[in-house]
Amino acid sequence: MSDSADLRIVAVPGFPLVESGTDLVAALLDCLRDGPLALQDGDVIAFAQKVVSKSEGRHVDLATVTPTPTALELAAVVQKDPRLVELVLRESRRVVRAAKDVLIVEHRLGFIMANAGIDQSNVNGSSESALLLPEDPDGSAHALRAELRRRTGRDVAVLVTDSFGRPWRVGTTGVALGAAGIASIRDLRGTPDMFGRTLRVSVVGHADEIAAAASLVMGQGAEGRPVVIVRGLAATASHTPARSLLRPPGEDLFR
Amino acid sequence: MSDSADLRIVAVPGFPLVESGTDLVAALLDCLRDGPLALQDGDVIAFAQKVVSKSEGRHVDLATVTPTPTALELAAVVQKDPRLVELVLRESRRVVRAAKDVLIVEHRLGFIMANAGIDQSNVNGSSESALLLPEDPDGSAHALRAELRRRTGRDVAVLVTDSFGRPWRVGTTGVALGAAGIASIRDLRGTPDMFGRTLRVSVVGHADEIAAAASLVMGQGAEGRPVVIVRGLAATASHTPARSLLRPPGEDLFR
Repeated sequence: MSDSADLRIVAVPGFPLVESGTDLVAALLDCLRDGPLALQDGDVIAFAQKVVSKSEGRHVDLATVTPTPTALELAAVVQKDPRLVELVLRESRRVVRAAKDVLIVEHRLGFIMANAGIDQSNVNGSSESALLLPEDPDGSAHALRAELRRRTGRDVAVLVTDSFGRPWRVGTTGVALGAAGIASIRDLRGTPDMFGRTLRVSVVGHADEIAAAASLVMGQGAEGRPVVIVRGLAATASHTPARSLLRPPGEDLFR
Repeated sequence: MSDSADLRIVAVPGFPLVESGTDLVAALLDCLRDGPLALQDGDVIAFAQKVVSKSEGRHVDLATVTPTPTALELAAVVQKDPRLVELVLRESRRVVRAAKDVLIVEHRLGFIMANAGIDQSNVNGSSESALLLPEDPDGSAHALRAELRRRTGRDVAVLVTDSFGRPWRVGTTGVALGAAGIASIRDLRGTPDMFGRTLRVSVVGHADEIAAAASLVMGQGAEGRPVVIVRGLAATASHTPARSLLRPPGEDLFR
């Protein structure tokens, strides 16, 4: 398996606003048509989690949410809307850290992340609406990839990406919540280095690095460039879902 | 400040093996000459930490290292060479986690990382040699940038990059140890989103995302592509060093 030495990372121009039920594949192909960005075998298409969640109708009207006493108590600690905190708890296995303005949980899918990934910014509609993560981001990626293949004949990979904060370092970086058609982690253990010794630290968070690269062109604010094409990556020999990026609790020294 | 929507990430072809005293800027310009990759204003040049360390002569002959009793004790826990452990302790403020095969420390510069970034793989020469991080990676980046400007007249940014493991997620991802001529973190707080609301989580680890993108083409094994050009990023309004990516201990819930 050879690495690539020349990549292009480009935002899909003119991607429309996404609502519940929007056909993301149709929207993408409409943007690309037969232009220079028309899909090629080996492309990796990164979809921002928000548009995947929106298309899957993962909105929740906060007016319909009644906080439990536990949520009310936690909301007082973190100083967030108790209805939002209620949704966070419903989406989570446990609270990892709670402090003023900070609510980090283990999402039911295993992600350690702020607010269970629930977002009120950039959600179409009123500020009383919250947007949950996709039910199954690896499944979403798989479905998008299959549909892209069906309509174009192209063998592409798909990522569903988000941005996570992290311990010790300032700022969020792109991560892969879902992946299909690519190795989310690349295990280079046993690969000889330039001098023939075996590499030591050599399991790479491949899909997260691609997500970080995509994040550079997605932008975060008013730009709205939620779909990015990464072109030029070498194919990976095996495909592993993004859930393989989650460190098993027993192997995690920081849990 | 506008984001970019079209990036190119390309490894510098034919970068030579680096030894103590190698002039990295001369080597880079020799590889690029007047070809299509000749430097342009706004390019970001990512140098792998290893070549910066090598050029700065940061090798240590392990035969010259005498472990203290503390290092011997810790080496028995982590099952590593006591001389390497001694060097790790000399380079560190404290041990964060120690277990079999795992030694995570707070480097004297503040990085939370395995083995204080000391590497025995890909080090030119005998396996008895260790390679420390650059003395001052932000300073290294600054000097490389100034020298590139002096010799080419181009206004480029420079990163010194490495790969770190992280809690909770499998695999390493690229990070910036040093930076010059770019905002290592981008603070988008107060930026309105598409619907005019203020973004919530909006401090981005910009230099780390660039480092992750560069890592995709650097490769990890026998390829040896330690210098990468990132072309097409919009200039950042301010420049902040990579040390701004280190979360102050008082603000870190995971310290």
